Amino acid sequence: MKLRVSCHLRFQVFENTALILMLRPFRGIQQIIYREAYIVKPLISILESTDSFGNGCQRLIASMGALLIHTSSEVLVPDNAAIAIGAQFIEIQNLPYEVLPFLLPSRYCESDRFGDLARTLTFDLSPGYDQVYKIVSWVRENIQYLPGSSDYPVSAIEVQQRGFGVCRDLAHLAIALCRSISIPARLVAGYLHNLQPMDLHAWLEVYVGNQWYTFDPTQTHLQGGRVVIAYGRDAADVAVFHQFGLGCLLNRMDVWVDYLGNSPFIKTL
Amino acid sequence: MKLRVSCHLRFQVFENTALILMLRPFRGIQQIIYREAYIVKPLISILESTDSFGNGCQRLIASMGALLIHTSSEVLVPDNAAIAIGAQFIEIQNLPYEVLPFLLPSRYCESDRFGDLARTLTFDLSPGYDQVYKIVSWVRENIQYLPGSSDYPVSAIEVQQRGFGVCRDLAHLAIALCRSISIPARLVAGYLHNLQPMDLHAWLEVYVGNQWYTFDPTQTHLQGGRVVIAYGRDAADVAVFHQFGLGCLLNRMDVWVDYLGNSPFIKTL
Amino acid sequence: MKLRVSCHLRFQVFENTALILMLRPFRGIQQIIYREAYIVKPLISILESTDSFGNGCQRLIASMGALLIHTSSEVLVPDNAAIAIGAQFIEIQNLPYEVLPFLLPSRYCESDRFGDLARTLTFDLSPGYDQVYKIVSWVRENIQYLPGSSDYPVSAIEVQQRGFGVCRDLAHLAIALCRSISIPARLVAGYLHNLQPMDLHAWLEVYVGNQWYTFDPTQTHLQGGRVVIAYGRDAADVAVFHQFGLGCLLNRMDVWVDYLGNSPFIKTL
Amino acid sequence: MKLRVSCHLRFQVFENTALILMLRPFRGIQQIIYREAYIVKPLISILESTDSFGNGCQRLIASMGALLIHTSSEVLVPDNAAIAIGAQFIEIQNLPYEVLPFLLPSRYCESDRFGDLARTLTFDLSPGYDQVYKIVSWVRENIQYLPGSSDYPVSAIEVQQRGFGVCRDLAHLAIALCRSISIPARLVAGYLHNLQPMDLHAWLEVYVGNQWYTFDPTQTHLQGGRVVIAYGRDAADVAVFHQFGLGCLLNRMDVWVDYLGNSPFIKTL
Repeated sequence: MKLRVSCHLRFQVFENTALILMLRPFRGIQQIIYREAYIVKPLISILESTDSFGNGCQRLIASMGALLIHTSSEVLVPDNAAIAIGAQFIEIQNLPYEVLPFLLPSRYCESDRFGDLARTLTFDLSPGYDQVYKIVSWVRENIQYLPGSSDYPVSAIEVQQRGFGVCRDLAHLAIALCRSISIPARLVAGYLHNLQPMDLHAWLEVYVGNQWYTFDPTQTHLQGGRVVIAYGRDAADVAVFHQFGLGCLLNRMDVWVDYLGNSPFIKTL
Repeated sequence: MKLRVSCHLRFQVFENTALILMLRPFRGIQQIIYREAYIVKPLISILESTDSFGNGCQRLIASMGALLIHTSSEVLVPDNAAIAIGAQFIEIQNLPYEVLPFLLPSRYCESDRFGDLARTLTFDLSPGYDQVYKIVSWVRENIQYLPGSSDYPVSAIEVQQRGFGVCRDLAHLAIALCRSISIPARLVAGYLHNLQPMDLHAWLEVYVGNQWYTFDPTQTHLQGGRVVIAYGRDAADVAVFHQFGLGCLLNRMDVWVDYLGNSPFIKTL
Repeated sequence: MKLRVSCHLRFQVFENTALILMLRPFRGIQQIIYREAYIVKPLISILESTDSFGNGCQRLIASMGALLIHTSSEVLVPDNAAIAIGAQFIEIQNLPYEVLPFLLPSRYCESDRFGDLARTLTFDLSPGYDQVYKIVSWVRENIQYLPGSSDYPVSAIEVQQRGFGVCRDLAHLAIALCRSISIPARLVAGYLHNLQPMDLHAWLEVYVGNQWYTFDPTQTHLQGGRVVIAYGRDAADVAVFHQFGLGCLLNRMDVWVDYLGNSPFIKTL
Repeated sequence: MKLRVSCHLRFQVFENTALILMLRPFRGIQQIIYREAYIVKPLISILESTDSFGNGCQRLIASMGALLIHTSSEVLVPDNAAIAIGAQFIEIQNLPYEVLPFLLPSRYCESDRFGDLARTLTFDLSPGYDQVYKIVSWVRENIQYLPGSSDYPVSAIEVQQRGFGVCRDLAHLAIALCRSISIPARLVAGYLHNLQPMDLHAWLEVYVGNQWYTFDPTQTHLQGGRVVIAYGRDAADVAVFHQFGLGCLLNRMDVWVDYLGNSPFIKTL
């Protein structure tokens, strides 16, 4: 399908503040970006770079006053996300080396502390996709999805204690559980068509059967219509904006995903 | 200044043909891309990746019939290109490692065969920028710049024998001469404001005084208003399109560079 | 000085187990490796790769029985580690892009929770080296260094609560504090000449004044004679060995650092 | 099999000269380096880095007088090189992106000029391995292999005109022919067990059937016992030593490959 995805950020800046933003749709996967706008007001110098995960980053210094960032992209994406019951666990020895970082514990996914729970949940299942399916179902059933319930990221341990969370929190817990049984898992930040209430979204992908598969603990039925912004080990890697110091404040963020029509040639990833 | 740069390609395709294109303005340098369109008709699947020089590449399979590619970007770029008389030669030991490939001979820059000429031209000059300045002046004075004079790239040796060439040819010869005295040099493909006749353009950058400096053997006065598309060792690395096999033909290419106004904050790189 | 550094690992393997090891001295910095041995018994297939930090990794599948890994290297290293009182904080905008990951919170360095403490410790100091010096001194004075006191990594928050730790723990806390005031900091795993008791060691480096500087919260006087094995955001990135599953056990690890003589040409980094 | 490979270089240095060397066996493939020595006399500072192909490079400044470099490694390598009659051509769209550079023309492999010859040789063959087999046989039969016949690299066009060459020259011509029909091909520099006369060796690898396969136009029967030093587009990328300026001279190079015994676990790659 064709989607137009837009994000509007309005900051109040009290003193010169460095920001690193990730707001452009990801390049290099099966989503085709055919129009893109990236407007910053006032006009300031922006330094673009690509991080080790392939995410585009924009660095800038916000000056005192209002800062407005408006991004909008028109993108072709698959209508459906692939499902692959039975897809096999890949032995560590056979993983592509760029997948290895997604086996390690990270800031918000303390996978070194979840082995017992993950093994209890999955010991009787075929290694791979089916274990992830069980883990994600367990997260969905045991952690209440409460959009807007947290202002800053909390870690998988904290999510489990608390029993509720935003999309990112549920994804972090699922990722920690997958990694603890040696299944590579990464956080995805992006847009999701028809998300209610509309906002930026986060979900996870796991590497089984020699490719990455999408999972979303906030949904009972896995939807397509996803536009990826960034991949990372967890929210520390893929913050939409990372602010250095206390010199500015996000006043407002608006997100839109508009359906622009059918796209004949991308059906399923 | 603000520029809108556009390139329109029209292919006739006789049988399924793979193409690799480099048509998006380069990211990660002091040019800010704030709007971009990338339209392919008919809609086909495109695979984006980034090569080892940081260039964005688009891979696609063209199907029988007409293929139209239309790219357009609005970009902020410096009004002037920096000049740095006296900037010093950087010892090999002190070059950043990502600069090293630009010391080696390459397909169209046989720097292993130009040492005698380069030393003759530059032996009495301060090592670095001033040597390059001399080399580029020598190319300008000895190789006639004839836009449209060649259909396919020829190498520095061939350019010198022939005595004339397109922008790319003059750049290749200058690059070969610079590298032959251990000055890193790279080819730049891009757009140039006010180029006559309008077309895509190619020039070179050399690494002296701890940064890359622009040189253009087709111009007596070094202009700003440059939008970089890609960097490479020579035209083999930065072909606007690379076609695999004989299954298609570029029928027409149109290029526009429109001045959109002053930009207050980028004066000189 | 010239050092011979050796590490001997003996595993008991109960079932086929994947391991990722980091045991070779790091390449690409001012330490010259002129002899190296890497012996695995029994002989098994090893897959080497380089991670995004430049660390060499060895992947292997350990089979049932004993597994012995013996590495030994002869290396030239600086006699002293540089000290740079007054070296300036580098603005985010001016950091090389490969330094940026070391600003983010990570598994064992929850820098997003240490801003208040770091600002309290350093508010009256010149931004940069002097702040780090204060932070590291504070860690040394407030966290008891107890070699052998922990079996698995704990995080900076846990270290602060606990009040004691191994070299890695003290480094993690210092790193979290530095990053929380936007100073890039990374964990270093390596060998240290004259360490008592001899073991593998961990310390930190911070990026100020446009280069990385060594700090070591376990020492009152900063020693040279350091051989770097690996760099990372924290111990999750630079585990000497990372074991997948519960199928093997490290029975014994022996470490030696032997002084082989003076080296005339590397004095200080 | 187990091999000990050694290379001894002796330079006479007239004035300070920068050198970039590639002399360590390549890491990250199915060859296990279990001992390595890298001795430079006099002891001088060496800067190691990894190029975009994964090759380890050593940069140094040679000072006036004699410079001796002695490298020696003990390595486990496959007894045989795989042969794969019928392995299929991989469509451009399906090539891993890191393979793409090996499709382009390069300094010594002017693949943009060999399409007619390559198509004539291979038009009636199944696309892929069988075409390469034909090309390599044609090179073997038409270009005389004369070890020691050239001091510096010449290009595929020059090799074809001349009708004879060293191992590197034959490989360059075969590579140019393969690339001209869109088969990725790369030059390999390394050691070969039982080579007569003993020297460093060069051959090629091509990417078909989703992996790299070894070809050697100097041999009628494809031997195993190969230790890879470096990969590249051609000899410009993989020079054993690259000297900047005229300030030094290689007086002597000695190469040994010693058979150390059978290795039970690596039979064929």
